[in-house]
Amino acid sequence: MSIETISEQRCFGGVQGTYRHISRETGGAMRFSVYRPPAAEDGPVPVLYYLAGLTCTEETFPIKAGAQRVASELGLMLVAPDTSPRDTGIEGITTDWDFGEGAGFYLDATQAPYAERFRMYSYVVEELPALIAGQQPVDVARTGIFGHSMGGHGALTIALKNPGRYRSVSAFAPIVAPAQVPWGEKALPRYLGDDRAAWGAYDATALVREGRRFDGTILIDQGDADQFLAGQLRPEVFEEACREAGQPLELRMQAGYDHSYWFIQSFVEDHLRHHARALRG
Amino acid sequence: MSIETISEQRCFGGVQGTYRHISRETGGAMRFSVYRPPAAEDGPVPVLYYLAGLTCTEETFPIKAGAQRVASELGLMLVAPDTSPRDTGIEGITTDWDFGEGAGFYLDATQAPYAERFRMYSYVVEELPALIAGQQPVDVARTGIFGHSMGGHGALTIALKNPGRYRSVSAFAPIVAPAQVPWGEKALPRYLGDDRAAWGAYDATALVREGRRFDGTILIDQGDADQFLAGQLRPEVFEEACREAGQPLELRMQAGYDHSYWFIQSFVEDHLRHHARALRG
Repeated sequence: MSIETISEQRCFGGVQGTYRHISRETGGAMRFSVYRPPAAEDGPVPVLYYLAGLTCTEETFPIKAGAQRVASELGLMLVAPDTSPRDTGIEGITTDWDFGEGAGFYLDATQAPYAERFRMYSYVVEELPALIAGQQPVDVARTGIFGHSMGGHGALTIALKNPGRYRSVSAFAPIVAPAQVPWGEKALPRYLGDDRAAWGAYDATALVREGRRFDGTILIDQGDADQFLAGQLRPEVFEEACREAGQPLELRMQAGYDHSYWFIQSFVEDHLRHHARALRG
Repeated sequence: MSIETISEQRCFGGVQGTYRHISRETGGAMRFSVYRPPAAEDGPVPVLYYLAGLTCTEETFPIKAGAQRVASELGLMLVAPDTSPRDTGIEGITTDWDFGEGAGFYLDATQAPYAERFRMYSYVVEELPALIAGQQPVDVARTGIFGHSMGGHGALTIALKNPGRYRSVSAFAPIVAPAQVPWGEKALPRYLGDDRAAWGAYDATALVREGRRFDGTILIDQGDADQFLAGQLRPEVFEEACREAGQPLELRMQAGYDHSYWFIQSFVEDHLRHHARALRG
């Protein structure tokens, strides 16, 4: 697999890089960003994947979240993929901000014309980690995952569906029950078909209700001034499912915070330390 | 003066805001951003102005520098103006990235057709601080200034030209001798005319050589992998002038860092603490 380096720049003693490769899973060019901490010069380091939300790219997290300082201190590598395949040429695929390019929902689509390229689940779970393991000094046994909004949905579902693969998981303002909210009700039938039974495979609340568990405490931060809280996010639905299932969950409601990266940067240090406790232990 | 609030969002317990007003000095609408730390709820706080570089806006610093965390801790207000007037309608004024809109060089132009609107010096030194003092809980006696590249030039020249007004000054990769480098040799004659004598009023090295002093140590960070180091920045020119003049200067060369905000975010905490020592003392 050939990887093209777009840029590599010094940041907090480490390197912030952007790379490009041709993806087998998504059938086209994909970009991803990596923050390599100084500790990576001395040997393999734990790796933490970040999944971004609707409309975002591989640039959003490194530019807006302010996570490199703590990652440098803790010796964590940060990897952020794009949020979907790009330049798919599918008719109307860039028309909506909450469906299509920039809105891959971290699933493997089964419906035409999306099934061939919209395979972000397999990309994030299989292809990208293999690529990273071949390129960067990572200890793959120490992998964590987190994300924001649609990316929080991705992190939660991916961690629940792959027991043992991720040692830690957290989310900022995640979509926790896509099958029950407008964003999911719009995207899931297009990607997965009208049979709602298929949607449950990519719904964190449904996964917990059907018996999936994460071996550890899930950390979620949610702003109580988030404009999407009542309509799209509904963390109480996931909280109830976790309580009934005995799944450890720390849901922190943060007073006055909205859905933005101003919110994320305010709490990203807590999340990195949460992951470091599991990854460095 | 009427100020329009574009946005206000919670960040590190304070508020990140963007505002718009009609500027007397620049003859049109100007935007600026403010980070108001939690301490501002209890009374006036010190205020630190940040001047951005070529092509930047009032958004660049708050989004990319990661300064709010430390400003929250230290109780510093951060104010970032735009880098020039906008929508001036002057022919060709948006053609170049290093002259015109986005490249106001923090001076008061004297030449037509720029003189009427390109008055960023008076805007930053007089109009904006008066506006902030009327809108925000600031202790104007405790004001500092810093900036990056063209904005570092702005911070240094403004601090040198206004003794007693700023208690602290610092810069990232500043233009220190615009009259001697291509960026200045392009912009200064257009804004100020062909007589080089007029350029010295906006040249930090020339100001120090003619006897201007800052009452305190000037802090400068400069990456040694900066693509503009040898051609446009030349900190050694300013260093020599300061040494000969007895102007205290701490110039730190940072190995491997370039001209980007990855560099700025790596050292912004040091700068905020430098300012806080002077502003809170």
